[in-house]
This record gives sequence, C-alpha cells and structure tokens, in this order.
Amino acid sequence: MAIPMRRLLVGRPLPTSRAQHERLNRLLALPVFSSDALSSVAYGTEEILFALVLAGSAALAYSIWIGVAIAALLLVLTISYRQTIFAYPSGGGAYIVASDNLGMGFGAVAGAALLIDYVLTVAVSTASGVAAITSAVPALVHLRVVLCVGFILFVALANMRGVRESGALFSVPTYLFVGSFLAMIGVGLLRHLVGGAPMAYVPPAETAPVGGVHVALVVILLQAFASGCSALTGVEAISNGVQAFKAPEAHNAATTMIWMAVLLGTMFMGLTYLSHVLHILPSHSETVASQIARTVFGGKGAWYFLIQGATALILILAANTSFADFPRLSAILARDRLMPRWLAHLGDRLVFSNGITVLALLAMLLVVVFQGSVHRLIPLYAVGVFLSFTLSQAGMVRRWLRMGAGWLNAKTLTNLLGAMTTLVALGVIASMKFKHGAWVVVFLIIILVLFFFRIHHHYQSLRRQLTVEGWARPAEAKHTVIVMVAGVHRGIVHALDYARLIAADCRALYVEVDPQDTAQLYQRWEKWSAGVPLLILASPYRSLTAPVMQYLDAVQEGDPGHMVTVILPEFVPARWWHHLLHNQSAWLLKLKLLFRRNVIVTNLRYYLDE
Amino acid sequence: MAIPMRRLLVGRPLPTSRAQHERLNRLLALPVFSSDALSSVAYGTEEILFALVLAGSAALAYSIWIGVAIAALLLVLTISYRQTIFAYPSGGGAYIVASDNLGMGFGAVAGAALLIDYVLTVAVSTASGVAAITSAVPALVHLRVVLCVGFILFVALANMRGVRESGALFSVPTYLFVGSFLAMIGVGLLRHLVGGAPMAYVPPAETAPVGGVHVALVVILLQAFASGCSALTGVEAISNGVQAFKAPEAHNAATTMIWMAVLLGTMFMGLTYLSHVLHILPSHSETVASQIARTVFGGKGAWYFLIQGATALILILAANTSFADFPRLSAILARDRLMPRWLAHLGDRLVFSNGITVLALLAMLLVVVFQGSVHRLIPLYAVGVFLSFTLSQAGMVRRWLRMGAGWLNAKTLTNLLGAMTTLVALGVIASMKFKHGAWVVVFLIIILVLFFFRIHHHYQSLRRQLTVEGWARPAEAKHTVIVMVAGVHRGIVHALDYARLIAADCRALYVEVDPQDTAQLYQRWEKWSAGVPLLILASPYRSLTAPVMQYLDAVQEGDPGHMVTVILPEFVPARWWHHLLHNQSAWLLKLKLLFRRNVIVTNLRYYLDE
Repeated sequence: MAIPMRRLLVGRPLPTSRAQHERLNRLLALPVFSSDALSSVAYGTEEILFALVLAGSAALAYSIWIGVAIAALLLVLTISYRQTIFAYPSGGGAYIVASDNLGMGFGAVAGAALLIDYVLTVAVSTASGVAAITSAVPALVHLRVVLCVGFILFVALANMRGVRESGALFSVPTYLFVGSFLAMIGVGLLRHLVGGAPMAYVPPAETAPVGGVHVALVVILLQAFASGCSALTGVEAISNGVQAFKAPEAHNAATTMIWMAVLLGTMFMGLTYLSHVLHILPSHSETVASQIARTVFGGKGAWYFLIQGATALILILAANTSFADFPRLSAILARDRLMPRWLAHLGDRLVFSNGITVLALLAMLLVVVFQGSVHRLIPLYAVGVFLSFTLSQAGMVRRWLRMGAGWLNAKTLTNLLGAMTTLVALGVIASMKFKHGAWVVVFLIIILVLFFFRIHHHYQSLRRQLTVEGWARPAEAKHTVIVMVAGVHRGIVHALDYARLIAADCRALYVEVDPQDTAQLYQRWEKWSAGVPLLILASPYRSLTAPVMQYLDAVQEGDPGHMVTVILPEFVPARWWHHLLHNQSAWLLKLKLLFRRNVIVTNLRYYLDE
Repeated sequence: MAIPMRRLLVGRPLPTSRAQHERLNRLLALPVFSSDALSSVAYGTEEILFALVLAGSAALAYSIWIGVAIAALLLVLTISYRQTIFAYPSGGGAYIVASDNLGMGFGAVAGAALLIDYVLTVAVSTASGVAAITSAVPALVHLRVVLCVGFILFVALANMRGVRESGALFSVPTYLFVGSFLAMIGVGLLRHLVGGAPMAYVPPAETAPVGGVHVALVVILLQAFASGCSALTGVEAISNGVQAFKAPEAHNAATTMIWMAVLLGTMFMGLTYLSHVLHILPSHSETVASQIARTVFGGKGAWYFLIQGATALILILAANTSFADFPRLSAILARDRLMPRWLAHLGDRLVFSNGITVLALLAMLLVVVFQGSVHRLIPLYAVGVFLSFTLSQAGMVRRWLRMGAGWLNAKTLTNLLGAMTTLVALGVIASMKFKHGAWVVVFLIIILVLFFFRIHHHYQSLRRQLTVEGWARPAEAKHTVIVMVAGVHRGIVHALDYARLIAADCRALYVEVDPQDTAQLYQRWEKWSAGVPLLILASPYRSLTAPVMQYLDAVQEGDPGHMVTVILPEFVPARWWHHLLHNQSAWLLKLKLLFRRNVIVTNLRYYLDE
C-alpha cells in the first residue's frame, strides 16, 4: 500500500546517475529561483506608497526617488552577486562565503538568517496569494488557513518530485506573470506618452506641497525605503543554487541573474513610475497593482482579470524559490555538521526531501499560528535576507583582500559598495521594523546559531567517542543467553533451539506468579528443553520485570562486561487485531532491558498461519 | 519518576499472599455491592410517577400497586439469588450459571448483557450525581462533562487501590444515605399517622377519577412498571462477587443479600407510600425525593440538605458497584477465553486493573458522546440486567432438574417463579423501551457475543498451532550473522565482536551510496574486521532496505529455514535530543525485516557517555 501511494505522489525513484540530467537550463532556472524576487513586484510599490502617504498625499511624489534608490541597490547587488557566483561555482550562498572568509561564526549567522527568511517567505507569500484569492471570492475567507496549508503542501509535494519537474510545472505561471505585467506597463507608458491616460486620482488643490526637509519626513522616507526593500528579497536565491544549473554552472547562473535583475528592475520601476503618473493612492480595499491595471486597461476586462490571476499565482509560487533553496542550504549546513545529518540525505527523486518536509512543516506552523494573516507576518520579513546580503558581501571583500587584490581593485570596490549599501539598508529596515516584530527574528537567529553550535559540538564529541584511532579493542567477553519462557509451546522450543545455536551457556528463565502453573511446566520441560536448564524465579508481587532484573544483576555481578542476550519469544498473529488479545507485558520488560549495558534483547518471532 | 507517581496514586504493590486479607466483611461488602441497587431508591419512585401522570394525576394512586409489584419481584429475586449464591460459592454470576446449565451461548449472552449494563450504570449514575450537583450549583452546568469524567476517574482510581480500601472509602456515604433516608421515611410516616403531615399537593376537584380498565391505561401501567424496574438493577451484584467476601463466602454473601433486599424494599416502599399520601406530583424542576424531604421536614433546613447531599453522593458511588463487578466478570470471561487474557491479570493491588481501566474508558466515552445527559442514557438501561436475571434463574431451574429435583421441588419452583417474573418484566421493559434506545443495547449484546466467539476461536486456533503434542521438532538450522556496517567505529567493532561470539558464519554488509565513502571504509577494514568478510552492495537508488532484502533472498534461497541474524549496530546518545541528530533509516530496515521469516533482528547498542 505505502509504495504505490508514494509512487503516485512523487513518482518513481531516480538513480544517482540521473543527477546531471535533473539539472536546470536557464529558462527553467529563472522561474525556480526568481519567482520569489519577481513576485515582490506585486506589493513592493504599494509598500512604499503606504509608508509615504503618512506624510500627506503630496509626499507620494517621493516614490520615484525611493524607487530609484532601490533599483540602484538592486544593480549593486546583482553585480556583486555575479562576482560571488563566479568565485563560488559550487554554490556561493551567504553561508559559504561568510564562513569561508569571515569564520564559522559569521557563516552560522548568515545561514540562520537565511533559513528563517525562507520559512517566512513561504508563509508570507502563500498567505498573500490566498489573500488575493479571498479578495476575489470572499466566501472563502474562513477557509484561509486551510487554503494556505493546502498550497504549502502542494508546492512541497511538487518539489518532492524533483527540481526539474517542479521547475517545469511552475514556469508557466511565472512567465505569465512577467508577460502580463510587462504588457500592462508598456500599454500604460504608451497611453501616458500620447497623453490619453486617465488619472486614477486628481490631487485636491488644498493639499499644500511638503515644504523643506524636517525630521518627520526623513523618518517617513526611511520607512518607505525599508518597506520597499522587501522587493529585493529573493535576489540572492540564484547564488545559493548554482549547483542546480546545467554546466557551465557559474556561467548559466550569472546569466540568469542578469535576466532576473533586468526583469525585476524593469517591472518594479515601471509600476512605480506608472503609479506616480496615474496618481495612484494606496488603499486598503484595492491593491496598487489592481488600481493600475484597472486604470490602464480602462475597467475590469479580460486583461484586468489576467493580471489579478497571475498575481495570485506568482505570490503562491514565490514559495517555490524557498523550497529550492532551504533544503539545499540545510544540506550544506548538515554536511558541515551544524544541522542534523539526515538533512543532507538525497531522497528518492534526488532532492533533499527531509529539508522540504521540515520547511513545509515550519511554514504550516507559522501560517496556523498567525492564522494566515499577511499583515502580522510582514514585519518579520527582510531583516534576515539583508543580514545575509551584508555578510556575504563583506565576506567577498575579505576574500579579494586575502587573494592580494587591493582596496582599490574593481572587484573589491564592487563588493565593498554592496556591503555598505546593504548594511545601510539593514540598519534602516531593522530600526524601522524592530518594534513591530523584527526583534523576534533577531532572537530566533541567535537561538538558531546557538543550536548550530550545540549540534556541532555533539557531532565532534561523537566522533571522539567513536573513533577507533588509538582505541584498544576490548578483550573477548563472556556470553550467556537467557530465554524467557512462559510455558512449553512451539514458539518456546524454537527460541531454545536458537539459543543453543548462538551460545554454549544457555538458561531458560520462568517467572512464577501461580505455583500451579509451574508444576505443569515441569512436566513437559524434560522432553523439550534439549538440555537447557530451567530457572524458576518467584514473583510475589506478580511483576515480570523485577525478578528478571535481579537475576541479571546476579549474572553480571563482578563482571559488568559479561554479555547477556535475553531472548523474548513471541508469536506473530496472522491478523492485526489478534495482537489485542495477547499480553503485552514483554514490552515492559524490553523497555527496562534497553537501559542495561551489555544486555542484548532479541525478539524471537514464531509465525502463526491463521 | 513513573514509580513514585504510581505509588502515590494507587499505593505500594501487594504480594499475592495478601489476597485473603484483602477480602471484605459484610459491613464493607454491603456498600461495595449495594450502592448501585440502593441508589435507585433516589429515582425509582419518580420514574413510576412520571409514567403514571400521563393518565392524569388521579392515576398516581396506582403507584402503590406498581410499588407492591416491584417489591414482590425483589422478594422473588432475593430468594432465588440466595439459592444461586449457595449453589455457586465461587461466584455465581449470571454468566457462570447460564453457561454451566444452559450452555456457552446463553452464558455469553448473559455476560455480554451484564458487561454492557455495568458500563451504562457507571455512565448513568455518574451523570445523575453530577445532575444533582449542578441543580444545586447551576454555575457548574457547562462543566458537566468534565465533572462526570473527573468522578469516573476518581472512582476508578480508588478501585485501583484495592477492594478493601475503596470499600472503606465509599462505605461512609452509603450508610449516610441509608440512615438519612430511613430517618426521613420514619418521620414522614409518623407525621402521617398522627395526622399532622402537610400535603405537597391537593388534587383539584375537577380531575375525574380514571374509570375502568382500558387499553391506554394498561399501557401506561406497564410503562410505569417497566420504569420502576430500574430500581432493581444492581440486585445481582452480590452474586457476581461472592469471592470478594471473607470466608465462609457463600454464607456471608447470602446474609448481605438479605440486608440489601430489606433496606432496598423498605426504602423503596416507604418513599412510594409517602409520595402517595403526601400527594407528590412529579416535576421536572424538583425531584420527588426533594419534594418529600421538603414536605416531611417542613422546608429547606439542615435535614433537607443532608438528604440532597447524600443523594448526590450515592448516585456517584453507585458506579462503584460496577467497578467491583465488571473487572471480576471480565476476568472470568478472559479465563474462559471469551475475552482478551490480559483482563484476567491481577494488578499491583490484587485487583483486575486492566478491567477497571477498560470500564473507566468506556464509561467516559459514553459520557462524552452523550454529553453527560441522563435523559438520553436512561432508556438504554435495565434491559441487560433483566436479560441476565432471566437467564440466571432459568439456568438454576435447569440445574435443579438435572440434579434430580423435580418440577415441584421448592428450589425449582422458587427459581422458576424468579425466571417467569423476570421474563415478564424483561418483556415489558424491552417492549416499552425498544424504540427509545433499548434496540441499541440488543444490537450491542449481539455484537459482543459475536466478539466473544471470535476471540474464543482465536485462542483455540492458537492452542492448536502452538501445541507441542504430536509436533516434530525441526532439525537444526544453518545460521548466518549479518552485521550492517556504516563505517568503522567503536560501535561497529563492538557489533563485529558480538557477531563472532554467536556464529561461525559472520558477514559484514555495507550499502554503498557514494563510492568515495567505500574507499575510506576499505582502508580501515583490514585492521578492525577481525576476519569478518566485508560485502559491498551498490544502491543506485540510495535505498538502504532494497539491497539488503535482495541479499537476504539470495542467502535463504533454496533453504528458507536458514536462520539469519541481522545485527544493527546503534549508539545510544547520552541525551534524548541527540536522537534527533541521527539517521533513523535503520528503523525502516528493521520494520521491513520484521516481516521476514527466519530473520532475527538484533539491535546492538553502544553507549555514549556525553
């Protein structure tokens, strides 16, 4: 039963030799690794406008400059991450770059920050996708959490099927989103240029323009910048997944990075510019993207619904990028003994299935705890990513310096610029969001880093305790086999025969609760014991375990290295419910024996046919 | 941790030799085995009045005659059950009497009927006790189910402590109930005789007396009788528990039976008579007992609250009788292989703890499903008990006839009268209650009887399959030990040493996922293998189990009797959370191996110190 179900869900196992074939070309890699970054176009501009409108609707004019600042940051990040990709073609995630150049500690912080952000990305993007759906069909509002969990399971399952299959599946909606948004921006700009574009909103004359730069305005501008930076999350995804690309890996990854940056920059700036010239006001009842689409296409026609549908899809699929990177990163951490080793095991379909499962579980937990509310999850977001940006860029600077390039070398300067700008952005984001929940992320990063070190410590200690280097092999031990008998039947005879097979010193042990039964046992023993001596232990309190423990104490007294194999004969019923009819007290004995050293418990099963 | 908690709750274990000491004298046995029967006084009269009032308030006058009929039935039952006790001093429950004289089938029906009724008794009596409490403190109404579950757990736990301890604990409220009710009846009768008793209700003149006997009236009288019969449930309890009495068991049990019958008869008839002369009208807002108490004691004084408190207590404690009898009966059924054998095991405190647990779980389930509503549980009640009455009495008749006593022998006639009257009562009860839920009980009895026979069949088949009579001991088998190795470390070396200890034919098996690791393994193998050959199994799909299964197929091919011991080396971490860090894939292998015949799985544990 188990196997066919599994086959149906994730497909038949792939041999290790297929690993190369499972890799992605650039057209498939772009949707896999960019859906997170591209999807932020759907809300990036809106976040900026919401922050600015607090200073009055005239302040919305600053959105262009905030947009330019973020686009500049994107440019710097793209150039510096391309350098990283070429420097670390085996997967240049922030964790590797930071630990390689700045030390394990910084590496662990970068790794923790990214892992947390990936979980948040899945939760936030799924929740926003579901919010888009429930805006369209309000009847589904009370199914919000169920829908979120369902979509997370769906994306997780698709990823279980392998990178290539999920890439192919999810490329269609990504390209649909890109195509429809580019079309909308193109049409919007054209109509604006020819002067025929309607305005969504005409600013009332009484709104005085904001005069001079004062403190409150600076804060609001910084907040707008911090909010807009969420559009840059996911930019690092390609650098973590270089090994998922077909050869030449670095080259293909770097090219894909350029494509992604161009698309992201164009769409983000296009939307921001359109929202400015169309005089879009942020609103809680309609998204900015929806307003632009409605204005550009003149009402709610087919194009409008295409834009809205593509937006919902891309938001849900943004989770896919996390599913591509989280398992990869945790496998790398596991290989370096900072996370449990089972995260590094390749599953049936050549993906790190355990990491996919862990990510899905954590994201579902988050969605359930926060009841699928985007609003409450958003402030936790972006801090982790920008921390990893800064650490990764700083690591690259260190790397160039160590390799002999001076401070004035172009590569050094590029990554230095990247490090500085992302540090400034991190500072702005952290200070603006700290009270609203970013502290939780900081706290979680610290906890996770501590965990990494505990785990690392354990694996090192394990290595020390298990190594055979310089270890003296123990001398051959004495060995006694004890067969627990409850009567004389075929299963017991079977166990006695096995005991005689594995040791010269065999003893049968009978725990006496009712002396009448003992007499019956004796009658048959002679014939079937095959010479194994029978020991009767009285049990005045009717306990099975206590007399056995006392006997083992006696056997091992003076020689704790004396090996004792305790054989528990059991019969295996033909039907599951028959188990309910049998005494399970052997389980208790087994449990107690598990805690004794040099006692080996062997269940000897005798199979029943009916 | 586990042991001290258990000690605290149920006390220290009692040795088997204390069994005699744990038995009950008559003063303790009366409350244990009669609280069920006596508690029905609290609602028996009321049930009759509710049935009669449907024919108009004048019909209430018939209550005396219904009461007389029920008292007569009680007399017949008492005399016939005394005969049963003396005939079956080892515990003469309906199951034993019926199966001994009428055959296993009737015995099983009687046993099933009683078991179901005991579960219902616990649920109904606890629910009525809690209803009495929530009438007094309405704020507790929404805690009804929680209170029911709590009381069931409390009574179950007290019974776990042993028969004598629970008997002593619960005797106080039982005697309090008997004393206070007898006092109330005495005072009431006295005030009635001297003519000073007030009337609760003066019948209005316009109520025409019921004229003649017509069909509707007959039905109502029968319904009143059927309802009143619930007062007789629990009368059989003593006969089931003869072995709980101190010696001479039968004599003491028979005497206690008389005491119980006299108390029950007196209290029931006294209350019925008082309700008649005080003109009590049944009401949904106040119980009949409460009305009588208020009328007799002239308002809600100390006596009134004593009566109400004692009533609530006895209703909850009525469950205690079931806890004394259900585990005893299921132990007898288990000994006869009609129920799982673990129900016959004496626990730490010389009670059948497993039966107590099963009863508590079933009753709690019932209470939760029915949301603690007495009203919905009551119709299920009494059918089972009367069925067991009839079967038990019929069995006794058969017994006397088989022993040579004729039909006209006094003993035969007594039990025949008992059988006939309870059969009539059963017919009335079943027909009156069938639609209202009694059909569920009939259905459950059939299901349970079928279960009994399935279980019996299994134990017989087990016996056939396991018996050594006429069985040829198999010839000595070949034995091969396979050690699963994942590398070379101390745990593996330990396992290799154990393997060499238990068999001459040892092999080490390594499942290769990455050929690079294999090279490393080979380097160290020579030094530490102690001559055990190393076999490498390639695993192109990275599965641990598939190659091992194939190898076992090859080993056992041609000789399925070839015994193979598979040794799974494992290390035991010092802290529980370390388990999370290790690969649990050996579990999957173990699970698959469990289904292979002649393959023995042995976990070889290597203990870590930190």
